[in-house]
Amino acid sequence: MGIDLGGTKIYTALADAAGRVVAEVKVLTEAARGERAVLHRLVQTVEEVLRLGGVPRNGVRAVGLGVPGPLDVARGIVYHAPNLGWRDVPVKEVLEKALGVPVLVDNDANLGALGEHTFGAGRGVDHMVYVTVSTGIGGGLILEGRLYRGWRDGAGEIGHMTVVPEGPLCRCGNRGCLEAVASGTAIGREGRELVARGEGRGILAAARGRPEAVTAAAVSAAAAGGDAEALALLRRAAGFLGLGLANVVKVLNPALVVLGGGVVEGAPFLVGMVDEAVRAHALSAAHGAVRLEAALLGGKAGVMGAVALALGA
Amino acid sequence: MGIDLGGTKIYTALADAAGRVVAEVKVLTEAARGERAVLHRLVQTVEEVLRLGGVPRNGVRAVGLGVPGPLDVARGIVYHAPNLGWRDVPVKEVLEKALGVPVLVDNDANLGALGEHTFGAGRGVDHMVYVTVSTGIGGGLILEGRLYRGWRDGAGEIGHMTVVPEGPLCRCGNRGCLEAVASGTAIGREGRELVARGEGRGILAAARGRPEAVTAAAVSAAAAGGDAEALALLRRAAGFLGLGLANVVKVLNPALVVLGGGVVEGAPFLVGMVDEAVRAHALSAAHGAVRLEAALLGGKAGVMGAVALALGA
Repeated sequence: MGIDLGGTKIYTALADAAGRVVAEVKVLTEAARGERAVLHRLVQTVEEVLRLGGVPRNGVRAVGLGVPGPLDVARGIVYHAPNLGWRDVPVKEVLEKALGVPVLVDNDANLGALGEHTFGAGRGVDHMVYVTVSTGIGGGLILEGRLYRGWRDGAGEIGHMTVVPEGPLCRCGNRGCLEAVASGTAIGREGRELVARGEGRGILAAARGRPEAVTAAAVSAAAAGGDAEALALLRRAAGFLGLGLANVVKVLNPALVVLGGGVVEGAPFLVGMVDEAVRAHALSAAHGAVRLEAALLGGKAGVMGAVALALGA
Repeated sequence: MGIDLGGTKIYTALADAAGRVVAEVKVLTEAARGERAVLHRLVQTVEEVLRLGGVPRNGVRAVGLGVPGPLDVARGIVYHAPNLGWRDVPVKEVLEKALGVPVLVDNDANLGALGEHTFGAGRGVDHMVYVTVSTGIGGGLILEGRLYRGWRDGAGEIGHMTVVPEGPLCRCGNRGCLEAVASGTAIGREGRELVARGEGRGILAAARGRPEAVTAAAVSAAAAGGDAEALALLRRAAGFLGLGLANVVKVLNPALVVLGGGVVEGAPFLVGMVDEAVRAHALSAAHGAVRLEAALLGGKAGVMGAVALALGA
């Protein structure tokens, strides 16, 4: 059983031993109803999926759970998940008591990496970096064939690498993080700034003429239609992604970088732009040239990573 | 047996099973005499150290060798070592034939990391980043208790992370690498530029009044004496080191960063300056605060890493 717990949706899937999904359910998280309600809803979705799949509780080997925030993986305690309003929630213990099944917890970006490694673009690749570009920017590392978590389960914070010292403020409190200049939030903000200056007419048109509706999706739609200003915004974001990823590549020497998340799905040509930017900073090819590829699992990466985590239990 | 093969010196040490050095020899590399002469000299130093230690050849379990450049670790072929004038040299095969003992080869920065991890500042630390600041800037990673080499043995190129896009040209061909703005070479160059503008009188004095003799060592000596311009140059280099290392810390979540190399030995107060810069970019402490420490082995880090490599054979 895999669960992807997001700020908006809970996505739960039951898979067989080969990772084929047998039954799945998506419900709204409704985080505003509070921690206990969300925990209760998690248990409910597991029970619903079991019913759908016609599988008894004792037919489940383990539950994998992805959470949107930093955590203590061994103890399964979520330190802080702003999208859920959670602080120090012992989600592993709560679910294990309620379900009577081992529960393994990790953060959503790590499980996205594990999902793409096990079932997606990174199958068979032992050294892989996964980056998800959506509202924020997250990352996960597969090193020597396994998820690498670091000293205190904090590895992979690619979105908070500083790429523009003294740049725009990030929600983490630092300035010039990759997330602050290349996430969907940043691209949407820059689109709105353009429109507010009376420019970006193609972008405004893609938002049906409503300046407040200019988001990364509108910028991507305009760019897909060939709009030069939208393309310039995305190329700028791709340049920052390429700079950050080139640095990660120099430190880790991966064979593959997988780019996922809603912004990449909405603008698949970003992968080529980022690839170009990575190559502009690359070292000579003594150590092999890294490949960049789009993620294959789309919105399923997290839940499939949770399935992979449970299968490895 | 450990050997640290540098562009200037060959440092060879025989150690017992606990890593205690029994006998050691340092000779000039004399790389200008060519590849065959250097390979012959390596064999000679091994034989000399064995004689000094009173140990027969068959008393050696393995030889570890550090080389100054990228290589194929499994096959022991050095791709390129500019300081030696080497290209595609099968040093493992040559030495194994000459010595009749297993030879393990790795690059000097990786062996510095392994040396500090096994015998120095990183003993008992499973997640450690090692950086050496001297003529260039190198790095080595200890992840989950072991040396991490990446897909094609190219991991740890911390010196070639881009920290100043469009910055000064690096010898690797890219612009604004950490090495191009914070190595001993960069600090020396900036010192000479200051002096050429008629400034940096304290730095010039530390170089005995000879502008051409201004090096990182002279800058460090002036800084140690409280010279404000020298301190500003070092603080600038420390800022770049802190920026690059903060990014590495976000990606890898290590418990410890060990700073070594001639520049750090010549200016131990750099460690505090870099620590401050790393903290200025750090994320909140959910994942534990990384420690920064000075290397403990000095010029012995590489040869002791080679000993550790041989002990692990």
